[in-house]
Amino acid sequence: MSELVNVAVDAMGGDNAPTEIVKGAIEAVKESGKVKVFLVGKENLIKEELKKYQYDEKQVEVVHAGEVIETAEPPVMAIRKKKDSSIVKALYLVKDGVCDAFVSAGSTGATLVGGQVIVGRIKGVERPPLAPLIPTAKGVSLLIDCGANVDARPSHLVQFAKMGSVYMESVMGVKNPKVAIVNIGAEEEKGNALVKETFPLLKSCPDIHFTGSIEARDIPEGAADVIVCEAFVGNVILKMFEGVGGVLIKKVKEGMMTSFRSKIGALLVKPALKNTLKAFDLEAYGGAPLLGLNGLVVKTHGSSKAIEIKNSVLQCITFKEQNINDKIKEKITLED
Amino acid sequence: MSELVNVAVDAMGGDNAPTEIVKGAIEAVKESGKVKVFLVGKENLIKEELKKYQYDEKQVEVVHAGEVIETAEPPVMAIRKKKDSSIVKALYLVKDGVCDAFVSAGSTGATLVGGQVIVGRIKGVERPPLAPLIPTAKGVSLLIDCGANVDARPSHLVQFAKMGSVYMESVMGVKNPKVAIVNIGAEEEKGNALVKETFPLLKSCPDIHFTGSIEARDIPEGAADVIVCEAFVGNVILKMFEGVGGVLIKKVKEGMMTSFRSKIGALLVKPALKNTLKAFDLEAYGGAPLLGLNGLVVKTHGSSKAIEIKNSVLQCITFKEQNINDKIKEKITLED
Repeated sequence: MSELVNVAVDAMGGDNAPTEIVKGAIEAVKESGKVKVFLVGKENLIKEELKKYQYDEKQVEVVHAGEVIETAEPPVMAIRKKKDSSIVKALYLVKDGVCDAFVSAGSTGATLVGGQVIVGRIKGVERPPLAPLIPTAKGVSLLIDCGANVDARPSHLVQFAKMGSVYMESVMGVKNPKVAIVNIGAEEEKGNALVKETFPLLKSCPDIHFTGSIEARDIPEGAADVIVCEAFVGNVILKMFEGVGGVLIKKVKEGMMTSFRSKIGALLVKPALKNTLKAFDLEAYGGAPLLGLNGLVVKTHGSSKAIEIKNSVLQCITFKEQNINDKIKEKITLED
Repeated sequence: MSELVNVAVDAMGGDNAPTEIVKGAIEAVKESGKVKVFLVGKENLIKEELKKYQYDEKQVEVVHAGEVIETAEPPVMAIRKKKDSSIVKALYLVKDGVCDAFVSAGSTGATLVGGQVIVGRIKGVERPPLAPLIPTAKGVSLLIDCGANVDARPSHLVQFAKMGSVYMESVMGVKNPKVAIVNIGAEEEKGNALVKETFPLLKSCPDIHFTGSIEARDIPEGAADVIVCEAFVGNVILKMFEGVGGVLIKKVKEGMMTSFRSKIGALLVKPALKNTLKAFDLEAYGGAPLLGLNGLVVKTHGSSKAIEIKNSVLQCITFKEQNINDKIKEKITLED
């Protein structure tokens, strides 16, 4: 038992809970003998779902939580008041060392706030960033930070660059990952006050591979592996990805339906197109880790289906096996 | 002569100067008898291009400028030193009242800085924003500001909202345009310090139709007519539009080429798709006005072809006819 990676899963979080969440957790368990999932939430609902599957009982445990934090609730208050919620109970499993990681498709705010308040930050980490993987023409890049840390300071961004480098190198296997800071031009003298102050700090960082500024236009091309920015900008980048992608794909589909000729063509290109566009689907890459905590917290989309939950749970194995947190600790304290 | 709208055009600006610039200017003149273009740049080169066309000579004038400001030059220095450049000379034509407007595909920095320094701001305008139109699922929205005004203050954003409303109402004919501020969530309490401070100011503005926050995801849907943000965020939005769009369209094309079946399909859908995607082409909408100056300055893409130059020149007619600057003056001074 001791060598299993223990992952708490918020069985009540997201639009498709508990059905898809339980399904994804079980799929993860079936795919890897290295993981045990702790399904946290309303016991009767979870057990009802579990009846659908056959699985190794040593790899699945149900932890009852009577409350659910809704997406619209103010996060700080929700974490404080709803002690019996799936998010709070799951986070305590991580804090108390029962679990190594927590995966949630529920309230982003509560997951982020709870992660910091309950699980706590690694000593030296100023702000834990939320760092989703985004698809690019070349593969994936890590966008760090997309979390709740608005109005960040230069020292935060430097830590994001270091933590992001550790993640891309150790979890994604990218050797010497290229780090770039989001800017409004390629030249060093461009940018707002935050970027201008951060740029020389990143440039003089000995333990990252800083390549300079990146314009938003070049992010989808895959011009860097670790894209550093403060959370407001990161959020805008992530959501423009979703928004432009969604509208364009809708337009392409509409365009194909405008004439008889194009309708026939659409039938012929459909299977090939589906494969191509799948590579550009943000949800295919599992959840976004909240880095720099004493444990791993992974936030998946509210609309997560089983596949995203499964990928997120499996991601926790690599995270544990690669000792990411020890590596982060080392990089951050080096600085101090 | 006096009723003609006089537009100075930077014949040396952009990747396709002077050929496409002169072509676009002449096309504008042929399309509208209301405009006169002043082609500013190297006389011999411009005259060489002009030989290709037949046009009403009363509508075209060549103004010699011996220097060119390159894109890479630091803008402030370039404006100060290159007095004989096409940008500086054209801006003086506007300042001196010879021309009503200036269209440039050249250095963005020099055009923005020069616009402020040479043409000057309308009294009361704190910062002139650059405001491109972006294509959406419903039509177009005005993204304001995408210029050089990083680290804006709340009062600047309020002025952007007012100027943007005037533009969308008077130039684009949108009645009572919906104004939204870019934010990382729909709730009023979300956002960074700038947005939190600006939100109540916009809310209490009597002369705009403020609808609250807009998430970046909803911008391509066309959820608001005037999208207010500070320049760094605006730049990221604009360039994500270009970047995601470019990569996705490339992927769609590649996807169509993966099998024999899909290649046949591609031939059939091509004409229909081309039309749809044209509606999503950022360059189809002419240039971005720099609002709040004593005159109009329009910045087009560096890669502008004749069509964008033509549309930008024609846009200046509406701007003049609708007395946009008088309306801006009125809205801004109301506030004081």
